[in-house]
Amino acid sequence: MAAPVNPPRGMRDLLPAEKAKREHALAVLRAVYRSHGFDEIEAPALEDYDRLHAGLGGDNEKLSFSVLRRGLGPEQWATAGDVAAVADLGLRYDLTVPLARFYATNQAALPAVFRSVQVGPVWRAERPQKGRYRQFVQCDIDILGEAGPIAELELIGATGAALDALGLEGASVRINDRRILNRLLSTWGVAAEAGGAALITIDKLDKIGVAGVVSELGEQGVDTAGLAEAFGGLATAGWDLAVDPPAWLDVAAYTDLLALKDALPQVDLVFDPTLVRGMGYYTGTIFEIAHPSSTSSLGGGGRYDGMIGRFLGREVPAVGFSIGFERIVDLLPDRAHGTVATVLLHDADVPAAALLAAKRRAQEEGGRVRLERARRNRKAQLAALAAEGFTRFAQVTADGTGDLRPLT
Amino acid sequence: MAAPVNPPRGMRDLLPAEKAKREHALAVLRAVYRSHGFDEIEAPALEDYDRLHAGLGGDNEKLSFSVLRRGLGPEQWATAGDVAAVADLGLRYDLTVPLARFYATNQAALPAVFRSVQVGPVWRAERPQKGRYRQFVQCDIDILGEAGPIAELELIGATGAALDALGLEGASVRINDRRILNRLLSTWGVAAEAGGAALITIDKLDKIGVAGVVSELGEQGVDTAGLAEAFGGLATAGWDLAVDPPAWLDVAAYTDLLALKDALPQVDLVFDPTLVRGMGYYTGTIFEIAHPSSTSSLGGGGRYDGMIGRFLGREVPAVGFSIGFERIVDLLPDRAHGTVATVLLHDADVPAAALLAAKRRAQEEGGRVRLERARRNRKAQLAALAAEGFTRFAQVTADGTGDLRPLT
Repeated sequence: MAAPVNPPRGMRDLLPAEKAKREHALAVLRAVYRSHGFDEIEAPALEDYDRLHAGLGGDNEKLSFSVLRRGLGPEQWATAGDVAAVADLGLRYDLTVPLARFYATNQAALPAVFRSVQVGPVWRAERPQKGRYRQFVQCDIDILGEAGPIAELELIGATGAALDALGLEGASVRINDRRILNRLLSTWGVAAEAGGAALITIDKLDKIGVAGVVSELGEQGVDTAGLAEAFGGLATAGWDLAVDPPAWLDVAAYTDLLALKDALPQVDLVFDPTLVRGMGYYTGTIFEIAHPSSTSSLGGGGRYDGMIGRFLGREVPAVGFSIGFERIVDLLPDRAHGTVATVLLHDADVPAAALLAAKRRAQEEGGRVRLERARRNRKAQLAALAAEGFTRFAQVTADGTGDLRPLT
Repeated sequence: MAAPVNPPRGMRDLLPAEKAKREHALAVLRAVYRSHGFDEIEAPALEDYDRLHAGLGGDNEKLSFSVLRRGLGPEQWATAGDVAAVADLGLRYDLTVPLARFYATNQAALPAVFRSVQVGPVWRAERPQKGRYRQFVQCDIDILGEAGPIAELELIGATGAALDALGLEGASVRINDRRILNRLLSTWGVAAEAGGAALITIDKLDKIGVAGVVSELGEQGVDTAGLAEAFGGLATAGWDLAVDPPAWLDVAAYTDLLALKDALPQVDLVFDPTLVRGMGYYTGTIFEIAHPSSTSSLGGGGRYDGMIGRFLGREVPAVGFSIGFERIVDLLPDRAHGTVATVLLHDADVPAAALLAAKRRAQEEGGRVRLERARRNRKAQLAALAAEGFTRFAQVTADGTGDLRPLT
């Protein structure tokens, strides 16, 4: 017996049942996004090392897999001072940096307002842990070139429709605006240059609770008197603040969010003034999907007007929504095979030509058809086939015939 | 204006029209293979460096992209003697080596006869040239665990059905058997140890012609007397050699091929005793797709009984068929969008909520819907939209209404 053989550390194989479920989910997502006017594009999985390390990837830049320059050897490695000297490419760690590069390359061939769908694997060298992999699929939609709120409306609307189509009804979308967070912080006396650290702390609210957040803010020099109570007020903030707005509220931004809510009656939009979203590049609205069946978010996004144009050299307004494909797949039921699936059992002595003819006849009736050698324990074999989703079977005889019977 | 921005050397971006065409082709292929009883699986894009360089990849091993070990720096690079010291992973250069690794890892969870589909990108650091890319998609079907001819029949039958479903009728499949080549060489007096070089030469027949092949064989020490005429005889070899077989023919192998042909009346199977297929790992039947619209092959495969079991430690019979996805996509017509696609033109002053409501109503009638700012040159705008596949349009007014008109 050979030594155990495994995929690379932190990566996984997808067996038929899991792969079928994922491909089904992707087909549903593609169809919904397409019907909503989004166009799928694809950039290479590799990008130039320098682009992946231009500061647009946040902490993910550190987790990036780098690809060795071809044609170098010990002599060149010996004098290499940094990774850029030994590596010229890297595997993408998200789909947003490649989108910025793609847009800079191809914008002349794209519509003035470009609605993009990207689906594909990304790679991050994270410490392997349960449910987190070093290769995983991201599924992003972005609207580039539209500064108005219709972009947010189309994105959130399409995402809601996608979740519904997958059977994940009951999702809600928490929404906030970076302008609201900024005003909140200034009300609390946080200096502009300390804002980033304060946001990182507030972003931990789910994990460390109000007391933890207040304590950390205090360590950052924020006056914490009354802060715990203030958080209580934020938690109950809703859509009724416009008439008598509290002092911490950026009313203009709040009014914009209210307009989004009114235009999206089919989506459960929840105002959450403590929603931060990690990435530093967000400039306006930010949103995150919550679902009763999952404690963690099923995706999120926001407006990031400064970033897409970075490689192009001019600013391009942009909003994006990335659903958490891996988490969503875990919530979906195993794929009901639905349609007819036939297995043709046969003994070893049935001629190949007869088997193929039997298969062809069964296929003409529709559905999928598998040939399988009959095993001695027929009952166990049929049960396993039924569990795999096969709906009928026949025992094929030497002349290529056999009666089809239901398999349940 | 910023400097030009491009994808990495030898790689390409896929714009919406091209991407739609490719995804459509993949959906067709997946549906056909599934109906033929094949199960899709997925292995990571990365494999351990050692597995990618275990001798199973032929010349492709040299073209492999290697991934830098994490956590090393100048100090470790300075003493690195070979690539394996600085790289621990690599990007797959084909789908066959990962399949061998996948099967070794997961065979206990797979059916005794496993029919696999794999679709995905592979990477090779080839010199960039027109129509050849460093990242490209492969689409392989393989049957593992079946030594009998039913495996060849199912593979060739499924591949023929896939091409038909893509609209590429008229393909033929050239077929041969390594046993026939071996006997041919021994008839010509080629020693067993010189067989590999002779096969590489015969494989060039398409490129250098009979005279070139005979001359190269002569350089290898083969007696070339009568060899040019012999090639003439091979070119006209057909399915009528069984009654009075020529001396060079391995009759047992030929009879097996004849049986495949008889069982596959729907496929144009052409016997070609000069067909070699490059890879050294083939052990039996080999085949290649020819199509009138392409001078190069649209795919090929064969039996390679020695390879899949390499990482498992025991022999597993295997046959595979890899279609040339990139070439096939190039032959397909641009995607006829087919169904309804609506564009809603609007001026800048139409409120976002009204636009979204108009979009929702149009979607309820089916098809895809895109919002687009009306441009001054309406005629040019509508013509461009029609070329993109949109079938109808409306001018949305401030109240969110507008009459739909056909777009042709």
